[in-house]
Amino acid sequence: MKIVIDAFGGDYSPGEIIEGAVLSVKKYSDLTIILTGKLGEIDKYFTTHKLSRERIEIVDAPDVIDANEAPTTAIKREGTSLGEAFNILKVDSSVDALISCGNTGAILAGGFLKIGRIKGISRPALAPFLPTKKGTNVLLIDCGANADCKPINLAHFAVMGSIYYSEIKGVERPKVALLSNGTEEHKGNELVKEAYKLLEKLPINFVGNIEARDIISGDVDVVVTDGFTGNVALKSIEGAVKLAMNEIKTAIKSSAVSMFGALFLKGAFKKVKSTMDYKKYGGSPFLGTKKLIIKSHGDTKRETLCFAVDLAYDSAKLNINSKFQEAFSKLEISEET
Amino acid sequence: MKIVIDAFGGDYSPGEIIEGAVLSVKKYSDLTIILTGKLGEIDKYFTTHKLSRERIEIVDAPDVIDANEAPTTAIKREGTSLGEAFNILKVDSSVDALISCGNTGAILAGGFLKIGRIKGISRPALAPFLPTKKGTNVLLIDCGANADCKPINLAHFAVMGSIYYSEIKGVERPKVALLSNGTEEHKGNELVKEAYKLLEKLPINFVGNIEARDIISGDVDVVVTDGFTGNVALKSIEGAVKLAMNEIKTAIKSSAVSMFGALFLKGAFKKVKSTMDYKKYGGSPFLGTKKLIIKSHGDTKRETLCFAVDLAYDSAKLNINSKFQEAFSKLEISEET
Repeated sequence: MKIVIDAFGGDYSPGEIIEGAVLSVKKYSDLTIILTGKLGEIDKYFTTHKLSRERIEIVDAPDVIDANEAPTTAIKREGTSLGEAFNILKVDSSVDALISCGNTGAILAGGFLKIGRIKGISRPALAPFLPTKKGTNVLLIDCGANADCKPINLAHFAVMGSIYYSEIKGVERPKVALLSNGTEEHKGNELVKEAYKLLEKLPINFVGNIEARDIISGDVDVVVTDGFTGNVALKSIEGAVKLAMNEIKTAIKSSAVSMFGALFLKGAFKKVKSTMDYKKYGGSPFLGTKKLIIKSHGDTKRETLCFAVDLAYDSAKLNINSKFQEAFSKLEISEET
Repeated sequence: MKIVIDAFGGDYSPGEIIEGAVLSVKKYSDLTIILTGKLGEIDKYFTTHKLSRERIEIVDAPDVIDANEAPTTAIKREGTSLGEAFNILKVDSSVDALISCGNTGAILAGGFLKIGRIKGISRPALAPFLPTKKGTNVLLIDCGANADCKPINLAHFAVMGSIYYSEIKGVERPKVALLSNGTEEHKGNELVKEAYKLLEKLPINFVGNIEARDIISGDVDVVVTDGFTGNVALKSIEGAVKLAMNEIKTAIKSSAVSMFGALFLKGAFKKVKSTMDYKKYGGSPFLGTKKLIIKSHGDTKRETLCFAVDLAYDSAKLNINSKFQEAFSKLEISEET
């Protein structure tokens, strides 16, 4: 198996990306990783840190896409590490997946423009796993690829999410819910109300509407929403968890007694931090494109990159894309509906 | 000043509502509260608990609107505690505000159908205060009154939010931001992109887009969004804070050492709980109707009811509605735009 990784995306590139790649090929004996980026810098890193280059290929790309660059023009520029990674993913049939921690918009644009979508899937979607109260994971789809959606797009997200969750998590009929402002069938904006009618007809385990406070309850496995709302939900959750943790830190530091008590709680706090750490999930797969693309966090370090590689490796081994193709070829609710 | 309160809305009605009302009239010597609901039960509660009826009036309403009832039909039913409260608010010019902890949809329907909106305001909106990282408050408008919005509605929310924040919090030019999936001007769904252009032209301190993770950062004072997205953001935050707190509890209970440490942290945890407690803010005012309406939480107890009364009392004293009238009479971006 081959995975191409943009070595110059993210805050800690290229060092942490390279380290993660080296750890990953050690883990999987059948894995080769292609790194794209400034050849000189990558070379130097390997030499300086005395890292093995076994099953690591390096492809030179002298330029880097900035985090704030306009996505569609950026992805068309020649010689960028991300653009080169997409070129390789596109032309090399032996390459199964792409990972980047760079500019999200440019990654999505690359997916849309350079790779294209699987036949029958109206819109690919970003779908990260989140931790839940029950210790399980929930897949939130779409988290930001499509700011404006039609009901049919949400129906397709539901099908992709259901297949993906089922394959990756080994859950036979994952519970799929629609994010709304109330649980009753009549609740929602126009988009949600129309999507509800479509989701009911799909060959999935649709359990109805769910409120945002229950996304991470663990009661359902897949939560379907448009990319704008999904982005708001995801970032609201991230922001609130951070606030709660900060408040606890501040409160503890405000008295000597509580600082003393906190000494005995280090293990407990570490556990909580680990449960709530979204970085453990490696990033968001961009589901529905012809080849696998994973957008990992901007602040990815080696461990997170390894998780992203795990996700890409598992998805490729499980032939997720051919399962999507099969399902969408049979789907009666198609783009033309 | 007179405030009418639905004594039969919420999980702890009528007892906690009555207790809160009695505490509130004690606090404000110029306040009279009218309670609506089953006369016999309210009477009995006052007698059994030996409560003073000074400046408390009781109006009989034998029926109650259920939490799951369809809002528009429910609010039209005769003899309900909420319906009766709305009738009093409508016909009695000496009554300034209404508070209910009951069926949100029915409260909004009552506001729309029985009270009506202030001239020039296209849509009234739910606008609760939330705690922030900096210890300030942020007003999130709309949090659920209007699931589908047009750009002009968001512009009106921005004006109302700005005036309300400025008056209640005494901040001269509150920072107003638009909730989006990125901070750049071109980010957002179609609604947000169009609304951005309108907000720029308003006589408010518009600071651009804000991402959901920064709603509670304290960097801005008012966050404008449609009612569907606002509801998702609010409930995502609530759900995540609850999850973080639960995780900490579970982690602490998992070892004797951490349970020992936690004994010294009671003060710190209490502080955090208080900061994060949205109930402290009394509920969501429904801004833009001709008379003041406050929707308080379903699980309101006496303290929360007192906060809701504080909010109603302050809003009435500050003549919020006449300030809305004045601003909207001058507003160049009107409903007809």
